[in-house]
Amino acid sequence: MGIDPGSISCGYGIVDGKGNRLIYVTSGTISPAAGDSTPEKLNHIYAEILRVIDDYGPSVVSVENIFFAKNAKSAIKLGQSRGIAVLAAAQRGIPVNELAPTKVKLALTGKGRASKEEIQKMLSYMLGVSEFKSTDESDALAIAICHLNLSRRGLPDGTIGSMGSRRRKKRYTINDLSA
Amino acid sequence: MGIDPGSISCGYGIVDGKGNRLIYVTSGTISPAAGDSTPEKLNHIYAEILRVIDDYGPSVVSVENIFFAKNAKSAIKLGQSRGIAVLAAAQRGIPVNELAPTKVKLALTGKGRASKEEIQKMLSYMLGVSEFKSTDESDALAIAICHLNLSRRGLPDGTIGSMGSRRRKKRYTINDLSA
Repeated sequence: MGIDPGSISCGYGIVDGKGNRLIYVTSGTISPAAGDSTPEKLNHIYAEILRVIDDYGPSVVSVENIFFAKNAKSAIKLGQSRGIAVLAAAQRGIPVNELAPTKVKLALTGKGRASKEEIQKMLSYMLGVSEFKSTDESDALAIAICHLNLSRRGLPDGTIGSMGSRRRKKRYTINDLSA
Repeated sequence: MGIDPGSISCGYGIVDGKGNRLIYVTSGTISPAAGDSTPEKLNHIYAEILRVIDDYGPSVVSVENIFFAKNAKSAIKLGQSRGIAVLAAAQRGIPVNELAPTKVKLALTGKGRASKEEIQKMLSYMLGVSEFKSTDESDALAIAICHLNLSRRGLPDGTIGSMGSRRRKKRYTINDLSA
């Protein structure tokens, strides 16, 4: 499961792999209402991420490591959403993995500086999905695919840890896909 | 209740007012272990803030609005802790209020650019407490006092909203103090 927290909305995307096959599971954009207060927005994002995790039981959550932002205000907003996403995974005992944005773009398009449109084109080619509510959503799918590709080649670097002690209640399996 | 999330530890402080009296309730520093992963750290801060809220039932949570940081990386770290603090308050239905850092310093020391040591001196004078595990902790108390002073003069500006629908289970009262 890839999560791409933005300052306005938060995208998520889940993919699965069987052998060399890449399977689209789900994706979406969590968009708190414009008039919502910060606590309401964060609460909304938290509840939705927990819901997706509980519905699909991903084995790992990946986020991009972010070291740049327009300004401190937007960096703090981004950090707030990112913290909520990481906390939601931690609360369900799911390991969280960090990926460099350039690595994600490179894995998908062969270019470290691909545009969001190029990523969306590649996603429709790879997954057969072409409609995304936001670039946060398509970026989240790109993150999920990048993690899957790296983990097929062994352990991906950038794992920032898990709350290993808890067990997930429900586990997503390949068989669920055909149901 | 004031909360001062830092990139390493997170301070909190609770004060109460009766008439013109200012009463120290509790304060502390939440310090995740240095070796903890980001998910573990955020989970630890979240659990501890929830515990303090549940133990003392503050009527409002105040945080500083932050628009500056050393760099994007520390702004994002700060944002992560801040998001967790705001979420914890939201999960318990407690309104969250934002205060400008200069306003907090001004309210306590009469200077908008007071040092952390000047704030600690004023806190020992006002509350009779002189030992703080961190400047995050003393700053959190300063935030709580500033909010209390502003709310005595009517509604403080900077309320960023609440999750009003939930009711708190336990409510902190003046009487608890003498117990």
